[in-house]
Amino acid sequence: MMLALHGKGVSSGIAIGRAYVLKRERLKIPEYVIPAAFVEDEVQRFLEAVETTRRELSDIRDHIPPDAPVEAASFLDTHLLILNDTMVSDAPIKDIRDNQWNAEFALKTQSDRLIAVFEGMEDPYLRNKKIDVAQVVERVLRNLLNPDGHEAELIPDELDGRVVVANDLAPADAVTLKNKGIVAFVTNLGGPISHTAILSRSLGIPAIVAVHGATRYIDNNDVLIVDGKRGILFVAPDTIVISEYERRARKIERLQRELKALRTSEAISRDGVTVQLLANIELPEDMAGVHQALASGIGLYRTEFLFMNRKTPPDEEEQFAAYVKVIRELPGQPVTIRTLDLGADKHADIDLPTTAVNPALGLRAVRLCLQEVGLFKVQLRAILRASAFGTVRLMIPMLSNIDEIARVVELVREVQEELLRTGVDFDTDIPIGGMIEVPAAAVSADLFAAHLDFLSIGTNDLIQYTLAIDRVDDTVNYLYDPLHPSVLRLIAMTIDAADKQGIPVAMCGEMAGDTRYTRLLLGLGLREFSMHPSALLEIKKIVRESAIADLKQQSAQVMAARDPRAVQMLVERMNGDGDGATEG
Amino acid sequence: MMLALHGKGVSSGIAIGRAYVLKRERLKIPEYVIPAAFVEDEVQRFLEAVETTRRELSDIRDHIPPDAPVEAASFLDTHLLILNDTMVSDAPIKDIRDNQWNAEFALKTQSDRLIAVFEGMEDPYLRNKKIDVAQVVERVLRNLLNPDGHEAELIPDELDGRVVVANDLAPADAVTLKNKGIVAFVTNLGGPISHTAILSRSLGIPAIVAVHGATRYIDNNDVLIVDGKRGILFVAPDTIVISEYERRARKIERLQRELKALRTSEAISRDGVTVQLLANIELPEDMAGVHQALASGIGLYRTEFLFMNRKTPPDEEEQFAAYVKVIRELPGQPVTIRTLDLGADKHADIDLPTTAVNPALGLRAVRLCLQEVGLFKVQLRAILRASAFGTVRLMIPMLSNIDEIARVVELVREVQEELLRTGVDFDTDIPIGGMIEVPAAAVSADLFAAHLDFLSIGTNDLIQYTLAIDRVDDTVNYLYDPLHPSVLRLIAMTIDAADKQGIPVAMCGEMAGDTRYTRLLLGLGLREFSMHPSALLEIKKIVRESAIADLKQQSAQVMAARDPRAVQMLVERMNGDGDGATEG
Repeated sequence: MMLALHGKGVSSGIAIGRAYVLKRERLKIPEYVIPAAFVEDEVQRFLEAVETTRRELSDIRDHIPPDAPVEAASFLDTHLLILNDTMVSDAPIKDIRDNQWNAEFALKTQSDRLIAVFEGMEDPYLRNKKIDVAQVVERVLRNLLNPDGHEAELIPDELDGRVVVANDLAPADAVTLKNKGIVAFVTNLGGPISHTAILSRSLGIPAIVAVHGATRYIDNNDVLIVDGKRGILFVAPDTIVISEYERRARKIERLQRELKALRTSEAISRDGVTVQLLANIELPEDMAGVHQALASGIGLYRTEFLFMNRKTPPDEEEQFAAYVKVIRELPGQPVTIRTLDLGADKHADIDLPTTAVNPALGLRAVRLCLQEVGLFKVQLRAILRASAFGTVRLMIPMLSNIDEIARVVELVREVQEELLRTGVDFDTDIPIGGMIEVPAAAVSADLFAAHLDFLSIGTNDLIQYTLAIDRVDDTVNYLYDPLHPSVLRLIAMTIDAADKQGIPVAMCGEMAGDTRYTRLLLGLGLREFSMHPSALLEIKKIVRESAIADLKQQSAQVMAARDPRAVQMLVERMNGDGDGATEG
Repeated sequence: MMLALHGKGVSSGIAIGRAYVLKRERLKIPEYVIPAAFVEDEVQRFLEAVETTRRELSDIRDHIPPDAPVEAASFLDTHLLILNDTMVSDAPIKDIRDNQWNAEFALKTQSDRLIAVFEGMEDPYLRNKKIDVAQVVERVLRNLLNPDGHEAELIPDELDGRVVVANDLAPADAVTLKNKGIVAFVTNLGGPISHTAILSRSLGIPAIVAVHGATRYIDNNDVLIVDGKRGILFVAPDTIVISEYERRARKIERLQRELKALRTSEAISRDGVTVQLLANIELPEDMAGVHQALASGIGLYRTEFLFMNRKTPPDEEEQFAAYVKVIRELPGQPVTIRTLDLGADKHADIDLPTTAVNPALGLRAVRLCLQEVGLFKVQLRAILRASAFGTVRLMIPMLSNIDEIARVVELVREVQEELLRTGVDFDTDIPIGGMIEVPAAAVSADLFAAHLDFLSIGTNDLIQYTLAIDRVDDTVNYLYDPLHPSVLRLIAMTIDAADKQGIPVAMCGEMAGDTRYTRLLLGLGLREFSMHPSALLEIKKIVRESAIADLKQQSAQVMAARDPRAVQMLVERMNGDGDGATEG
């Protein structure tokens, strides 16, 4: 009999395949006394298991698909750091030596202590850290208990086309499974920002988490349909359901082909308005997607990747090379380089001042750069030098007042004079723009626009701060609403302010790449959209199907609505009901 | 020779007195082996020291002056909780038993472990927690090392009129010292939100923290002048400086007397505009200050105190009694009761869902209440029942969308029907108002106003969210700026929206009680100010000296200024240079 299970769809797409249920037995931890003469051997055995685990994790880390975004590597790096931490290994070694405990018991005891400390803190953020500790320790324990069998051997080699069903997935398991050809993840536990969720999105694998009891209800080899968008999982589906889902999967495929055909078409509306469709990139490697979508430039080049997972910041040459690499690939097209946006959820291992209770409201982005002027000037020099090789725009994140603009401009001028003095080339007209992502910047967009060469609306943060919610916080993300009247008003105010000042305004937050908002934004006057390259062709399709004059009228109705429900309905009507534009 | 030392003035006021330098020797922790037969005695000795410490801390807690705000008690409660935590006591007992360590060494070892864990986390918030642990452990260690001499005996009894100079002050020390008559605190360490800072403000004692080397440069019995407002400390001052400061102290006193004389005068401007000056209260005990200032009602009755430092929430009767107590004391005057604003920096020990990385952007206030409907309805019942006894207004914190208003109103109606059915009296016309403190609420104030009976601007949060800063975060609080053009625009928009809707609008954030902003706010049309009672008479003085028509014109100039410096200057000009209104 067919069974439909519901969970949280955290990575969209449809997969149909047989289940591979990953059932791991609870580890039984033996406890015994090591004779004094063998204590050092036991320490050795412990260290070897740690070393084996380190090799396994490094090995998996080195086999992450080259097209996977940074998250996968960063999770594994976190686990490697935990493994290296003296907190994990010192106490067990001491207990083996002082108390003659066996290695498993010593490690388990320390792990329990650490987890108790994390739990005792009552800080849900740190309570989550305990999951990482537990996953790392479990891998070491498995290696202690099974020194000959490699951890990886627990997972069979032939998983091509299978759907993995597990209680939860450690990042290392997820990467290993992906490399063995699995087509979807289903887990009992997890939420929209769990490791599994983030990784499956990164790896482009449909996934449903929080399917309570999945491993209980599903047997190995059951046929499964995973609808990663809707969060529905069919177990042993009827043939009629299978054929319906095959149809849907084909439709998604067809749409993909249709979009591919738009690659070389212009982004121009039915009534002749040209729209700039730019790409957001995180790494120089992302350029593959940019070329694939034939973006008309880079609207947001994040530079944090250069600073992650290392102890010392990159020097000027390294940064220069990374910037020029991208610029050279896009001759004649704009490349908007955003200065360092570290802090908040983006942590570097570099020793920088950090911030306390509410990192999102703390020392981050331009605030951090204006405090660490040395670090900032190195980046400015690298960007300015790179500007000689193309059309570079300099973009400042997290501006909250005009003083900050003045201080950045002053530093840019300083660096420019240094370069002039030493005869180094740069674009003397490089535009300096600012992200509008703090509510203060949107409310005073007219004042900010007077001091900047372009604006770019960062909707993710703007929405978070305007609504006072942390979007990655499960308890409040239901409040996240791009169509909140205040959000729309701030966006409209920003576009108007830029228009009045006669400077360009772009949007580079997720809203810019979400088909549900394209028509509304076009109607509000937005003409530059910057997004993940994968969304670009879908947005182009909408632009080409739209008459801007109509959208303007409809958007005015949206802005005049006094009720959130009316806003929602009017926007849905703009998008046409069930036009399939957002399918897949 | 006179010496001037600079630090951070964290509690204003002037004190002149002789130094009492609290120099504590570093504890020397002995380490020895307890013979097996005496291990249980040693455990006993440890437990007795913990018990003595508990008695000391409880005793100090019970002798907190009745007029001190909740902070003092809450710090001591935190320390008592730490002392009770098994994290602090279990491991030492185990080490005494298993390793035959002496109690001091066992406790010190565990304390070091805990502190290392806190430090290892790299989370500055938790790193601060280690100070609490260290302070509690130090007190236990002193009791272990000196079982006969009571901790309190280390501080002499006769300190009347003295200025305490210390490296840092534990909350318990601060309270003990206050009770012995000291007139100011000076510490080497600390910041504007350190325990010492918060406690000294609570206790009304001038204080300067972060006077690096204070205990080194200052000797016992040195004459000191503490200027708590400017953060300047004079050591062995010249007679001319002493007489100048005596003059200033007298001026402050004179101003205080002058203000006292205004107690029964009306808050009415020179051109006949009446202004409501209301009080913010935190506890029913705060009513003493309300009567002293003769406030025209309560603009903000915080109800969190009922939920703090306890494991189970207060029942309806307890809440009802607390509300009615205040209402009965103010016959005919409005009492604005704000529903529970837990979460973010206000934690309760009650087991409620909490929020993760950015508590200020998380599950708090009305969000928490709408999730914990049972808890919320108990409070609504208590408030509604209390409304039968006076003029009660119900105020909802942290509104960010209109749905939340609708859901609260629905719950209020439900409770009202229950009360009607059981024949319990309540005010059927009780006004339901909302705090405007999330940027979204200010930007859509017109939409919110259509669904509410009154608005109240919470400037502290509004400024924080609008500028995306956490004000208690040392690294970014320099950005906190009530005169930011965006903040002023949002305030003006809110006042206008309420006026257009024909409903009252108040301000209950700190800005409402700060004399630097009174004229500007009057000019923008604000007519209800709610503040700490201690600020009320000063604000009344300004109202009585003002012509609203002039202020309106001047405020319009402020709002038209396109540069933050111009805003600052225009506001200073409104206030008149050096008119002494903000002195003291």
